[in-house]
Amino acid sequence: MDRIFYNGDVRTMDRRQPAAQAVAVKDGLILRVGSDEEILALKTEATELVDLGGRLMVPGFHDSHIHLMSYGLSLEKVNLGEAGSIEDIVALGRSFLRQRIEENGGAMPEGWWLQGRGWNNDYWNENRFPTRYDLDRITEDYPVTYTRACGHIIVVNSRALQLMGVGRDTPQIAGGQIDMDETGEPLGIFREAARDIVYNAIPRLSVPRIQQIASRGAEQMLRCGITAIQSDDFEAVPEAEYQNVIDALTQLSEEGRLPIKIFEQCLLPPLPRLKEFLSKGYRTEKNGGGRFRIGPLKLLADGSLGGRTAYLSRPYADDPSTCGIPVFSQVELNELIATAHDCGMPAAVHCIGDGTLHMALTAIEKAQTEHPLPDMRHSIVHCQITDEALLLRLRQLNAVVHAQPIFINYDRHIVKDRVGAELEQTSYAWKSMLELGVHVAGGSDSPVESFDVMKNIYCAVTRKGLDGMPQEGWLPQQKLSVEEAVYIFTMGGAYASYDERINGSVTVGKQADFAVIDRNIFTVNPEEIKDAQVVMTVLDGEIVYRK
Amino acid sequence: MDRIFYNGDVRTMDRRQPAAQAVAVKDGLILRVGSDEEILALKTEATELVDLGGRLMVPGFHDSHIHLMSYGLSLEKVNLGEAGSIEDIVALGRSFLRQRIEENGGAMPEGWWLQGRGWNNDYWNENRFPTRYDLDRITEDYPVTYTRACGHIIVVNSRALQLMGVGRDTPQIAGGQIDMDETGEPLGIFREAARDIVYNAIPRLSVPRIQQIASRGAEQMLRCGITAIQSDDFEAVPEAEYQNVIDALTQLSEEGRLPIKIFEQCLLPPLPRLKEFLSKGYRTEKNGGGRFRIGPLKLLADGSLGGRTAYLSRPYADDPSTCGIPVFSQVELNELIATAHDCGMPAAVHCIGDGTLHMALTAIEKAQTEHPLPDMRHSIVHCQITDEALLLRLRQLNAVVHAQPIFINYDRHIVKDRVGAELEQTSYAWKSMLELGVHVAGGSDSPVESFDVMKNIYCAVTRKGLDGMPQEGWLPQQKLSVEEAVYIFTMGGAYASYDERINGSVTVGKQADFAVIDRNIFTVNPEEIKDAQVVMTVLDGEIVYRK
Repeated sequence: MDRIFYNGDVRTMDRRQPAAQAVAVKDGLILRVGSDEEILALKTEATELVDLGGRLMVPGFHDSHIHLMSYGLSLEKVNLGEAGSIEDIVALGRSFLRQRIEENGGAMPEGWWLQGRGWNNDYWNENRFPTRYDLDRITEDYPVTYTRACGHIIVVNSRALQLMGVGRDTPQIAGGQIDMDETGEPLGIFREAARDIVYNAIPRLSVPRIQQIASRGAEQMLRCGITAIQSDDFEAVPEAEYQNVIDALTQLSEEGRLPIKIFEQCLLPPLPRLKEFLSKGYRTEKNGGGRFRIGPLKLLADGSLGGRTAYLSRPYADDPSTCGIPVFSQVELNELIATAHDCGMPAAVHCIGDGTLHMALTAIEKAQTEHPLPDMRHSIVHCQITDEALLLRLRQLNAVVHAQPIFINYDRHIVKDRVGAELEQTSYAWKSMLELGVHVAGGSDSPVESFDVMKNIYCAVTRKGLDGMPQEGWLPQQKLSVEEAVYIFTMGGAYASYDERINGSVTVGKQADFAVIDRNIFTVNPEEIKDAQVVMTVLDGEIVYRK
Repeated sequence: MDRIFYNGDVRTMDRRQPAAQAVAVKDGLILRVGSDEEILALKTEATELVDLGGRLMVPGFHDSHIHLMSYGLSLEKVNLGEAGSIEDIVALGRSFLRQRIEENGGAMPEGWWLQGRGWNNDYWNENRFPTRYDLDRITEDYPVTYTRACGHIIVVNSRALQLMGVGRDTPQIAGGQIDMDETGEPLGIFREAARDIVYNAIPRLSVPRIQQIASRGAEQMLRCGITAIQSDDFEAVPEAEYQNVIDALTQLSEEGRLPIKIFEQCLLPPLPRLKEFLSKGYRTEKNGGGRFRIGPLKLLADGSLGGRTAYLSRPYADDPSTCGIPVFSQVELNELIATAHDCGMPAAVHCIGDGTLHMALTAIEKAQTEHPLPDMRHSIVHCQITDEALLLRLRQLNAVVHAQPIFINYDRHIVKDRVGAELEQTSYAWKSMLELGVHVAGGSDSPVESFDVMKNIYCAVTRKGLDGMPQEGWLPQQKLSVEEAVYIFTMGGAYASYDERINGSVTVGKQADFAVIDRNIFTVNPEEIKDAQVVMTVLDGEIVYRK
């Protein structure tokens, strides 16, 4: 044996042997699960013994819907959300730049841009937008772009203007504005459609940059015990460049440098792009393979509850003028899903509203009925607003739901307002789904929410926000047991990724992916779960993180 | 929908939706499972409605260890076991010949031999062997060979002698005898090693003959609701000719003419033959495919309890001079299993005695420890004599057991005599296996025992022989529930064949294989189970048998 983990409280998530004390691993696989006595007897001279100190060990976590690239990119940008003044945004930029230059050995590479996001002048005493001259105080050597919290306004420094070739003679753009001072010189402020000038100037992410960004992001996930993800990454690059993401991650995987297992949710619309993708021979990889595998077709079929763009079956309770916006017509959705389905590629459809869910299930049913194929794990991402009929349909179609329990933290404040008390009662209904026999997988949608699995499990178990409110839990009849919550973040995710034969539970012959937690979330006061910390992560038998 | 089965009591063997009334199928797949109301709503003009009349429907049965070719061949031979005289064996031969000639349109094809087996002169008044002259009364046109019940003596007719080229000048063979009359003419009786002259003369089974024999056998299995088998067939041909079996069954499968799904248990020793097989590129087909798939390496590692050739860990209680006979040394077994394992091919090891089981588990453990591979479903065929330590080892190694509950019918009479009361108590321990978390699959070993699944389930549930004895059941603590018994003959078998993603339960997206039974074995008096009859068998959505 390469390694024996012993003296643990192992919750295997395998019904045939739910609990154990110790696990022996070799060549990345689990070779034996049992009592300390049984397993320690297998020790050889070459075996490394790892004392778990009585702590809880569970299978490595699966986050079934996350954005690795977006999260990784967010680490590359200055977060300006907390800035209280223009002085602050300058100071934050300087400090970030200094740190990055240090990490990179004295200078940043050719083509690097300092990017920041999240500033909001509404919170400042000096209620004005920053200008190029403010940002020049950060650096005159590197281009700087700072995006406002709303996303609609970008400010850049003089070096950026120079690289973009923007000056007093640059024409305005329809639907946008380049702000000029009274002398006709650009101030560095770009609004709405004019932002494209900035976007187009920032160098595309090269394959090595994608690799760096993905790896950094994945390293952070390992610290939360996450060993496998379904990740939606093509959104992080211009549409035509998804191939770079595939190439970058495939190369990392083949060279043994990818720090996490990825089942890629391929965001490919419009239809011609999906067809191009399929014509290249790409197919959902259902029978294992490397750490990077092609997953389902990701479809973004509606918006959000916050912005009232999620598509409801009825008008918004707090804005009867709208039902939200379906991104696709039923015909378009049918065609996208059928095109993928016919090639054995399941769809993973982002549905927040019940109207969108109805459309997605109709399209899935149609694809499957017109061209029945075995074991197609079509799935619904989010699946927040539901009623009893839709819950039953999920089961009838044997669909998978990607749930984000941590969304409770924010959404509990707005759901009743948005959809009304009646529809609220049957929404975010993960317990009902499990009871009905719907496959549920857990995830975070990071960077939208934190991928801290303990916080996510806390929300699933207590139905409370991270502030511990409401006391009795939101829709408390939907509370999951800790067992169920851990299950959806392990076996649930493995099933959703066609990975249940080789991952998702602590079972002999499966990959040795584990998370060790600083307290026993099965036995502590549930209030403590959100503070629990992963203290060790094991991936393919190797300890890849240790606190 | 192509077909809707409704008004049934459907036991799905899927924990997420254990019961239903109706199932809709299309293109061979299950598209919907639910209430009559839900499912009948899917009816279109093209849908055939099948009223189950309230009867029980379960997934199509898997027989996880059977010999399709041997069983098929047995249908091609006259059964002489009941004959009470030489006159009887002549009459049985004539009647069989007449019937076959009729079926074949007036004559049998070139190269056809009339074969019979099972005569036993010990039961006759005229206690002598039959001779060529007796068998000539059956036919002088076709060759006839009649094998004695013991298998050690074969009698042939004159036409056979002629074809074999055996006459007064034929030399005797070392280790055998060709019986001659007082004038030196052969009598048609061949003993021991001389039987090889007969075996060598019978034409080899051509590919079309193999196809005919397999198809006929499979048709009979469908009548018992069996839709999938793990079959051990290479034993039915000379060792070097396994390729013919593969070619014959592959061709049937590819042409859509194979009546049943086969996961072939490949009997390939000795080692050079296994290596030749692997060097041809054959591998265990774990991810679906046609109806014929290459399965595990079958190893016949010991004999039988009846003949005291099963290898025990201690001397036989009723014959302390022997422990039985392991077929392979530990070194040989290790090498065979490791050779297959290293190519991803699990072993299915015939182990009756606990001594053999110990050896097999040691070899499996060694192969897996030296070269860990994911999801290797090594299995033990029979696994009859066990103790608590061995049961635990089965679980520790995540092995699969192929159990034959119908063996209780005979074995309950001899187990205590053979292995003693203590070891008997922990043997044939299928309930203990399930409780420990061992994967169990059910089978018949036909033609050794009947493949009537209802009789097999009866034995598993009541622990009685088919005569209903003993009253309280043999080792009654090992009784399975009907649910468990049906499970091992459906999902258990599917798992054992790497088929659980697409078969083994009535689940949306799986293959539409069902058995409909004339009474509800879940609710009737268990004594009735053995008389239950399959009244309909559905394979890939088609009704392939209807009573």
